[in-house]
Amino acid sequence: MTDPDFASLSCSRLEEASVAIVGLGLMGGSLAAALKVRQACARVIGIARRQETAARALALHYVDEATTELVAGVANADIVVLAMPVRTILQMLPDLGRQLSPGTLLIDLGSTKARIAEAMAALPTYVHVCPAHPMCGKESAGLDAADPDLFVGRTFVVSPLQRTGPDALALCEALASAVGAQPLRLDPAHHDRLVALTSHLPYLLALGLMWLADEAAASEPILWHLAASGFRDTSRLAASDVTMMLDVLMTNPAAIASALARYREHLERVEGLLRAGDEMALQSLMEAVARRRRALNLHASGQRESA
Amino acid sequence: MTDPDFASLSCSRLEEASVAIVGLGLMGGSLAAALKVRQACARVIGIARRQETAARALALHYVDEATTELVAGVANADIVVLAMPVRTILQMLPDLGRQLSPGTLLIDLGSTKARIAEAMAALPTYVHVCPAHPMCGKESAGLDAADPDLFVGRTFVVSPLQRTGPDALALCEALASAVGAQPLRLDPAHHDRLVALTSHLPYLLALGLMWLADEAAASEPILWHLAASGFRDTSRLAASDVTMMLDVLMTNPAAIASALARYREHLERVEGLLRAGDEMALQSLMEAVARRRRALNLHASGQRESA
Repeated sequence: MTDPDFASLSCSRLEEASVAIVGLGLMGGSLAAALKVRQACARVIGIARRQETAARALALHYVDEATTELVAGVANADIVVLAMPVRTILQMLPDLGRQLSPGTLLIDLGSTKARIAEAMAALPTYVHVCPAHPMCGKESAGLDAADPDLFVGRTFVVSPLQRTGPDALALCEALASAVGAQPLRLDPAHHDRLVALTSHLPYLLALGLMWLADEAAASEPILWHLAASGFRDTSRLAASDVTMMLDVLMTNPAAIASALARYREHLERVEGLLRAGDEMALQSLMEAVARRRRALNLHASGQRESA
Repeated sequence: MTDPDFASLSCSRLEEASVAIVGLGLMGGSLAAALKVRQACARVIGIARRQETAARALALHYVDEATTELVAGVANADIVVLAMPVRTILQMLPDLGRQLSPGTLLIDLGSTKARIAEAMAALPTYVHVCPAHPMCGKESAGLDAADPDLFVGRTFVVSPLQRTGPDALALCEALASAVGAQPLRLDPAHHDRLVALTSHLPYLLALGLMWLADEAAASEPILWHLAASGFRDTSRLAASDVTMMLDVLMTNPAAIASALARYREHLERVEGLLRAGDEMALQSLMEAVARRRRALNLHASGQRESA
C-alpha cells in the first residue's frame, strides 16, 4: 500500500528545520523576520530575485543566509516557503517540484488557493505539499515594509490536499503558530470564495471609488480638498501592489465577479431606498449594519497611508 | 440703501469674542477644546442637551461655562456655532434665529449645506449667517471622542450666502484658521455635490460591504476569520453615527443617488473586464488608479477601529 515514491518529512520538528523562503517581499520578508526573532527554526535561508534584496535581508538579520540562486538555496532546506504573487508561484511550481529533495515540505503563501492546490497536486509524491495563506497584508510592498509581528493574532489558512499527510500538515501549522498566527484549515475553493468577499471585493470597491473620484477631479481638482479620513480609508486598497492583485483577479475571477454582482445589487437596493425617500427602511438597514460592524472585533493595529 | 434691520457684528475680532457652541458631541466638543487650548477667543460657552455632557465639558476644561439652556446660553454670545446633525439644525434654526441678539454671527457645522443655507437665508437680517463644514470626522461620536487637534490641517468649507457680509465671512474664516484648519469658500450646492463623492458615497460603499458580508456570514460565520485589514478599513464607515448619516442622506439624496449610479456603472465595467478575462485592460486600469492613489497626499493621522 505504500507509494514507492513516498518519502517521510526530512525533518518533522520546526525547531530543527532549515526553512528556505523564496521571495523576500512583504510576506516572505516578514515570515523570515518572524522566524528569526522567535528563534523558531534552526536556520532561515532567504532567496531573492535581486542581489540587493538578498544583501538587505542579511543586513537586517532577517535570514541566516541569502542567495539569488533558487536551486542552491532550496537544496538543503527541510521546508520551502513560496512567498510570491500567485502566478509567479504557478509558473515555478513544476520545475521547482522536481528539484526539491525527497521529504521536503513545500508551502506557499499565495493569495488564492485553488489554482495552486491543483498545481501542487501534480508534483512528485516524494515532496510534501501544503498550500497556505496568512490573512494579513499591507498595501505597501517590499522587504522594507516587512514586520516580524505581521502575523501575530492573524488567521493563517492552511489548505491541505488529499495527499498532504498528518505530519506535513502538523509542521505547516507549527510554522503558523510559531509566528503568532492561528492556523485555520479550509478547502482551497472555500477559501477562494470567502476571500473574494472579504479581501478581493474590498480591493475592487476601493479601485472603483478612486477611479470615479479621479475622473470627477479631472474637471474639479478642488474635490481632493474635500477628501477626509473616510475617503482615505475606503480607497486605501486602490494603492495595492498591482502585480499581486492582478494575479488574484486572474486566478479567482468567477468568485470575484459573483461577489461584485451581489454587491452591485445591494448598492442598487440602497439607491432605490434613497430615490424613494424611504427613510424608515434606510434607517433600519443603517442601524442593523452599524450594530454589526461595531460588534466586529477586527484588528485595530494596521495599515496607514502608503504614500 | 441701508437695511433698517441690519446690525454690525457685535464683535468682529475672534480674540475678543464670546463663542457659544450648541451641541457638544465630537465636532462641537472638538471645536470648544480647540478654541480653549489655543486661547483663540475670549470665552467658550458650551450648550448641551444633557446635564452630564455639560458637566463633563466643564470638567475637561473644554468650555468656560456650560449649560443645558439654549436661550440663556446664546444670549451673550458674539458667535453661535451649531454642531448637531443636519436636521436638528434645520429644526431649531427658525426659532433660534429670532432669539439671537442683533449682530450675532451664526455658523453651523452641518455635513450638508444646501438645505441649511436655504433655511439661514430666511433668518432675520440683524443676524449674520455663515454655513460651514470642517472636513474631518471619526466614526466614533460623542464628547469623549473630541480632540482639540481634530481640525489641524483640514479643509474648513465656508459657504457664505449673498447676505453674508465681508466682516462676517472674515470672522468665520478666522475661527477656522484659529483651530488649525484651512478655510475654503464653496457654494452650498457645489459642496454637497462634491462631498456626495468624497464622503457620502464612501459611507454607502462601506454599508453595502458590511451588509453583504454579514449576510454571507450568517450561513458561514468562518468568514470573519478571513477579514483582515483590507476589509476593516473599507468597511469602517459602516459604524458611523446613524442619526448623523441618515440626516446626510435625507438632505442630499439627488447628488448621492447620482454618485451611486455612476459608481455602480464603474463597478459593472470592472466586472465586465473580469468576466471577459481582459487582463490588459484590467492591468492598465489598476496601474493608473494605483498611481493616482499613491500620489494623493491625504492625512495619514486619523481614525482607528471604533469598536
